[in-house]
Amino acid sequence: MTSPDRPTLGVGLIGHAFMGAAHSQAWRTAPHFFDLPLRPELTVLAGRDAARVAAAAGTLGWSSTETDWRRVVERDDVDLVDVCTPGDTHAEIAVAALEAGKHVLCEKPLANSVAEAEAMAEAAAKAAARGVRSMVGFTYRRVPAIGLARKLVADGRLGEIRHVRAQYLQDWIADPAAPMSWRLEKDRAGSGALGDIGAHIVDLTQYVTGQQLTGVSAVLETFVRERPLPASAGSLTGVGGEGTGTVTVDDAAVFLGRFTGGALGVFEATRFALGRKNGIRIEINGSAGSLAFDFEDMNVLEFFDGTEPAETAGFRRILVTEPEHPYVAAWWPAGHGLGYEHGFTHQVVDLVRAIAGDEDPAPSFADGLQVQRVLDAVERSAADRSTWTEIPS
Amino acid sequence: MTSPDRPTLGVGLIGHAFMGAAHSQAWRTAPHFFDLPLRPELTVLAGRDAARVAAAAGTLGWSSTETDWRRVVERDDVDLVDVCTPGDTHAEIAVAALEAGKHVLCEKPLANSVAEAEAMAEAAAKAAARGVRSMVGFTYRRVPAIGLARKLVADGRLGEIRHVRAQYLQDWIADPAAPMSWRLEKDRAGSGALGDIGAHIVDLTQYVTGQQLTGVSAVLETFVRERPLPASAGSLTGVGGEGTGTVTVDDAAVFLGRFTGGALGVFEATRFALGRKNGIRIEINGSAGSLAFDFEDMNVLEFFDGTEPAETAGFRRILVTEPEHPYVAAWWPAGHGLGYEHGFTHQVVDLVRAIAGDEDPAPSFADGLQVQRVLDAVERSAADRSTWTEIPS
Amino acid sequence: MTSPDRPTLGVGLIGHAFMGAAHSQAWRTAPHFFDLPLRPELTVLAGRDAARVAAAAGTLGWSSTETDWRRVVERDDVDLVDVCTPGDTHAEIAVAALEAGKHVLCEKPLANSVAEAEAMAEAAAKAAARGVRSMVGFTYRRVPAIGLARKLVADGRLGEIRHVRAQYLQDWIADPAAPMSWRLEKDRAGSGALGDIGAHIVDLTQYVTGQQLTGVSAVLETFVRERPLPASAGSLTGVGGEGTGTVTVDDAAVFLGRFTGGALGVFEATRFALGRKNGIRIEINGSAGSLAFDFEDMNVLEFFDGTEPAETAGFRRILVTEPEHPYVAAWWPAGHGLGYEHGFTHQVVDLVRAIAGDEDPAPSFADGLQVQRVLDAVERSAADRSTWTEIPS
Amino acid sequence: MTSPDRPTLGVGLIGHAFMGAAHSQAWRTAPHFFDLPLRPELTVLAGRDAARVAAAAGTLGWSSTETDWRRVVERDDVDLVDVCTPGDTHAEIAVAALEAGKHVLCEKPLANSVAEAEAMAEAAAKAAARGVRSMVGFTYRRVPAIGLARKLVADGRLGEIRHVRAQYLQDWIADPAAPMSWRLEKDRAGSGALGDIGAHIVDLTQYVTGQQLTGVSAVLETFVRERPLPASAGSLTGVGGEGTGTVTVDDAAVFLGRFTGGALGVFEATRFALGRKNGIRIEINGSAGSLAFDFEDMNVLEFFDGTEPAETAGFRRILVTEPEHPYVAAWWPAGHGLGYEHGFTHQVVDLVRAIAGDEDPAPSFADGLQVQRVLDAVERSAADRSTWTEIPS
Repeated sequence: MTSPDRPTLGVGLIGHAFMGAAHSQAWRTAPHFFDLPLRPELTVLAGRDAARVAAAAGTLGWSSTETDWRRVVERDDVDLVDVCTPGDTHAEIAVAALEAGKHVLCEKPLANSVAEAEAMAEAAAKAAARGVRSMVGFTYRRVPAIGLARKLVADGRLGEIRHVRAQYLQDWIADPAAPMSWRLEKDRAGSGALGDIGAHIVDLTQYVTGQQLTGVSAVLETFVRERPLPASAGSLTGVGGEGTGTVTVDDAAVFLGRFTGGALGVFEATRFALGRKNGIRIEINGSAGSLAFDFEDMNVLEFFDGTEPAETAGFRRILVTEPEHPYVAAWWPAGHGLGYEHGFTHQVVDLVRAIAGDEDPAPSFADGLQVQRVLDAVERSAADRSTWTEIPS
Repeated sequence: MTSPDRPTLGVGLIGHAFMGAAHSQAWRTAPHFFDLPLRPELTVLAGRDAARVAAAAGTLGWSSTETDWRRVVERDDVDLVDVCTPGDTHAEIAVAALEAGKHVLCEKPLANSVAEAEAMAEAAAKAAARGVRSMVGFTYRRVPAIGLARKLVADGRLGEIRHVRAQYLQDWIADPAAPMSWRLEKDRAGSGALGDIGAHIVDLTQYVTGQQLTGVSAVLETFVRERPLPASAGSLTGVGGEGTGTVTVDDAAVFLGRFTGGALGVFEATRFALGRKNGIRIEINGSAGSLAFDFEDMNVLEFFDGTEPAETAGFRRILVTEPEHPYVAAWWPAGHGLGYEHGFTHQVVDLVRAIAGDEDPAPSFADGLQVQRVLDAVERSAADRSTWTEIPS
Repeated sequence: MTSPDRPTLGVGLIGHAFMGAAHSQAWRTAPHFFDLPLRPELTVLAGRDAARVAAAAGTLGWSSTETDWRRVVERDDVDLVDVCTPGDTHAEIAVAALEAGKHVLCEKPLANSVAEAEAMAEAAAKAAARGVRSMVGFTYRRVPAIGLARKLVADGRLGEIRHVRAQYLQDWIADPAAPMSWRLEKDRAGSGALGDIGAHIVDLTQYVTGQQLTGVSAVLETFVRERPLPASAGSLTGVGGEGTGTVTVDDAAVFLGRFTGGALGVFEATRFALGRKNGIRIEINGSAGSLAFDFEDMNVLEFFDGTEPAETAGFRRILVTEPEHPYVAAWWPAGHGLGYEHGFTHQVVDLVRAIAGDEDPAPSFADGLQVQRVLDAVERSAADRSTWTEIPS
Repeated sequence: MTSPDRPTLGVGLIGHAFMGAAHSQAWRTAPHFFDLPLRPELTVLAGRDAARVAAAAGTLGWSSTETDWRRVVERDDVDLVDVCTPGDTHAEIAVAALEAGKHVLCEKPLANSVAEAEAMAEAAAKAAARGVRSMVGFTYRRVPAIGLARKLVADGRLGEIRHVRAQYLQDWIADPAAPMSWRLEKDRAGSGALGDIGAHIVDLTQYVTGQQLTGVSAVLETFVRERPLPASAGSLTGVGGEGTGTVTVDDAAVFLGRFTGGALGVFEATRFALGRKNGIRIEINGSAGSLAFDFEDMNVLEFFDGTEPAETAGFRRILVTEPEHPYVAAWWPAGHGLGYEHGFTHQVVDLVRAIAGDEDPAPSFADGLQVQRVLDAVERSAADRSTWTEIPS
């Protein structure tokens, strides 16, 4: 519950599709439930089409609009630029914003290539020296159950980590008749399931374990290579053909990995797991305990305490809705669960507090770059007969 | 996504505790996700303590405050009065508001007695004749899984209903050391678990089945009769004693019931189910199918289709997050679940649409009265050796 | 693993339908996994039809047959009579066997009436004075998860018991076209769902809590009153009509109850819960912990430890397959679950050990009588407008 | 229910540890529940220690004993040799038995090396030409839920298979203090988790999909390399040291794979998944449907029917206990689940029927050899930087 007399933080949002809507809800909601040191203002929304961005600003709650993101970066009433565009534009926007002294929140994956991500991380480091902050939007870190998972690992409740298995299972293009979209074009999206959802489980498992991946062995697969163009094909620049477009990204990515502490990782990201809608599943086995999480039941964390006597040991289903759990005290009584969008609200909270506290928020652009390096290693391994591929640190 | 040029609907909210916060979030959020025919304005918030209501208005987003609810009812810029106070004040406020020509949204249970509820229903009927609308806040009806459950029953997918079992399980006073609160005083709360949470499962099962309870056999129980006064005991008027207060409501209510269509009902509402936080569990068995729901996994409805061959029949776990499901298309992609507060937003949506459409919203005050009559029959049966007690219609 | 040089225990089994097959498997299997003080011999199988009992003896592994149960009771090579006939014959057979000095294992419910059960309990008490033992076959007590549940309660892990909710859900006659059988005739079966499956949850909840029901309020229901006669209608003596028979027992029984320690009980037994096949579900909430069990996942017990800090508290899914758990060490490694029939094997084990140890096995006929009194009170309450009905002790 | 006048099948069992006990129970039980064309006789049990084998024969129900397996192979009263010894002896015993004209049931994995398995498959082919049958003991194929899974795939209910994810998770040596055993010695066991449990998920996924793995990319890991010798260290020939022994097999095996139909496979077998006791988990996603299985809830198969409308689609929990399901009609009513050992009984049933029907049972030694080739490819890939390794067909 942010007092109205807090200093303001002018926000400029670039992009108003799915992610833009989620970020808008977060900026609107955060101050009503959390005591923020700065009061976010929804100053300006940017989009390429004037009519559409105007309509979006009206419904999403933004005070003004721009059709050129450069204008947002230049505006004096903008303190923070929130980048919700496809990955091919992240680097240019984010670097410009940082150089202009604006704090930046950038959607994941940080960029479409390691080179771009390196440039961004470098810009972020320079900006940080001037007190300008940046964060990459791995929002699932802010699901309370994930926060609790990290805490249990950090508290030593799992002991030495031995196994990490992570899946991100969706099915929205399992049907070969599902149409083309920018997310299936390498030029726009960088990669397919790998970057879109695989990036999340790479980040989450590293975040929860406090360890990083050191190498991978991978296979990528595109099950359906030609897809019908959508009704309004004109909006898909660069996609030709007589009614179909060519999918140039992976439909699924599977890889083995090794963590810095020696744990084995098994990863799977796919858009072809029929019946799984947003199945982010993470299991971690340690020498002292185990954890299991599934986003399709997002208010729950399963925890096996290996120190419990065998008679009463078992995976316990922790309903992560207690005031003792991360972020929860700000919301509802125990058992009154949260939803998908709350992670975005928590992201805003942590970001605003870091900015006001002159601290670097996490995950940083450097963290985003490291995830990009993992994705790059996955692609290189897959292109080289799955040969084990080290991840540069 | 409500266009900014829609006509406004001035809202006055009475009460700013748990329910007030939930309603505020709903009023703020609904227009950003749904196309409403009227644009709600958070005009005024009322509370007895000037300083506290001013602070609440700031954090909850209300434009002005009042310390006397009568002022809200009188204000010209208020079109709708939203009643979020304890049950003993519902009748007076709601009737006054309706008579003043204000639409009314009233939290449940509608009142603390059948007599009050009858007066309210009568006032609502008179107001409706003048185009003034009223609704009682059984928000759980607006959980998408519950909406789907009702639709499946209405579509005949369950056939003839034979069994209804419903539990509302909480544990927040399972510890005898949990302090007194107004919810444990009969004068303020009317009843305990029965009215607070039992009312919800009465309404939900009647709503989903489309049938009403015709009689009950009941037992009420107060496990812990004396509780420590809270730290700031002064705020609990009417509670005496040298450090403890007497619990004058039920801790748990269990009852058998019969539905109009002949189905058997088994109900249990308790605040002593250790480990269950907000376990609203409803199972319905019919001649053609069965349903199961648990609010602790609120984005899921389980459905058994009895017409399926035995080889492949089974309770299916429907993730109620598809655009085909009630309310869901306005929110996020499949699998990106909703939370507790979304039911309140949906309530606002349905109420505003009914007001603009000159229709009586549901559940009406008459529906609230009928639930009150069920609660009353439960109390009478429990006081009369559990003897079967008919519910007047 | 019973040594072949143990003294023998000659068993005579009366009845070779479902229960007869289950008991036969138990008698055959127990000595191979458990070290029994007496080696059971499958001496004689009795059934009314000579050809059918001969065939059954061959396939079930019995050495000889009789067509009159009285011959079994008389035979010198029979030490124990195992009664697996319909309930209307239990009293006569069991009393005769006890008077003949044979140990008796009698299927549940003990009898079709309190009077019969009283006679049986009296005969059992007299026999016990002479070292002749008797047991009633509530086999579900011997599911390891149930044994663990009882132990946790006895160890104080649940504290003071406040709530017991128990359901026994089946669906085998949910279809009105399901044919008549002896289980639907009051003369043969005594009652319907109440005695057949309701008896089990009465016994199980009393066993696990270590408390008895003191009173009930009940409703009985017969949803389908006329059913087609089965193909071979001749075997159903006493059922007339032109192709249908009249169901004279309850299809479903629901009742509230009170336990000696003050806990509230809610019970439901039905054969009309479409999709539930053998859903014995028991939940117990105490002041210090809670338990949940569902026979459809019979190797699991859920336990909530209320002494755990809120951060990590949750219902834990104990896989009851560890050597530390009741009966399990005799079987397979952890995680290699048991099935329905194992409860019968454990029943044999406990019975044989009691006989050899000169101890009265449990549950005794007196226990069976007490359950019968609960069932009787349920019927009386249901016949008297659900009025609270005390259970004589 | 096998008639006592069926011709007999004399069985000789080699080995009487865990697997010997499971096979014994199967041989004893199968004829009581299934109508077998041949009546198995438990003719002879073999073990190296005369006293121990005599005791085992008594408790397990075998009529005679041998201390040299060669004697079993030679005996005229033995028609079938059942090999339940460690893997290093499989080839010698099985080949000798086949050459002696005995049918052979051999535990999995078929052998400790491809070369041994090739010799065994060759011997089996030669024997089959003479009507002598052989089978490898992948018993999990005979869990009813697995049988149903295969049928659904074969019926086309899954469409084109795209993803297979399989885990076999145990934790019995997660504790570094767990002692050495023959299962941790490469000379005896061939491999560790890979051959012991990984072999099962390779076989199961190939069986259910009806496809074979064509290549793999793998990592093997031994987390704990030195373990304390057990109390009776003398029985562990070849293991030296002052109190500890060296683990020479893998603790965990993870690998990616490709199936003949193009599906991606992700496999994980480990003995270090703390809290998972016998977690055989298989998920398959196809273009028309998906399946999920977990042995820790072995009577259930989850099935997602992609042809169902979105409104009511969901993973359905099929309780695989209906008479329509594989093997189930022989056992108990619906909902009365089976346990671990029943798979062994079903294995005996299928084997005896194949022998009597002059058909080659499945899985054949050739199937066992193919699994061995997969395991070998996993080891070679793991030794070669996870490079993609083709599996010879």
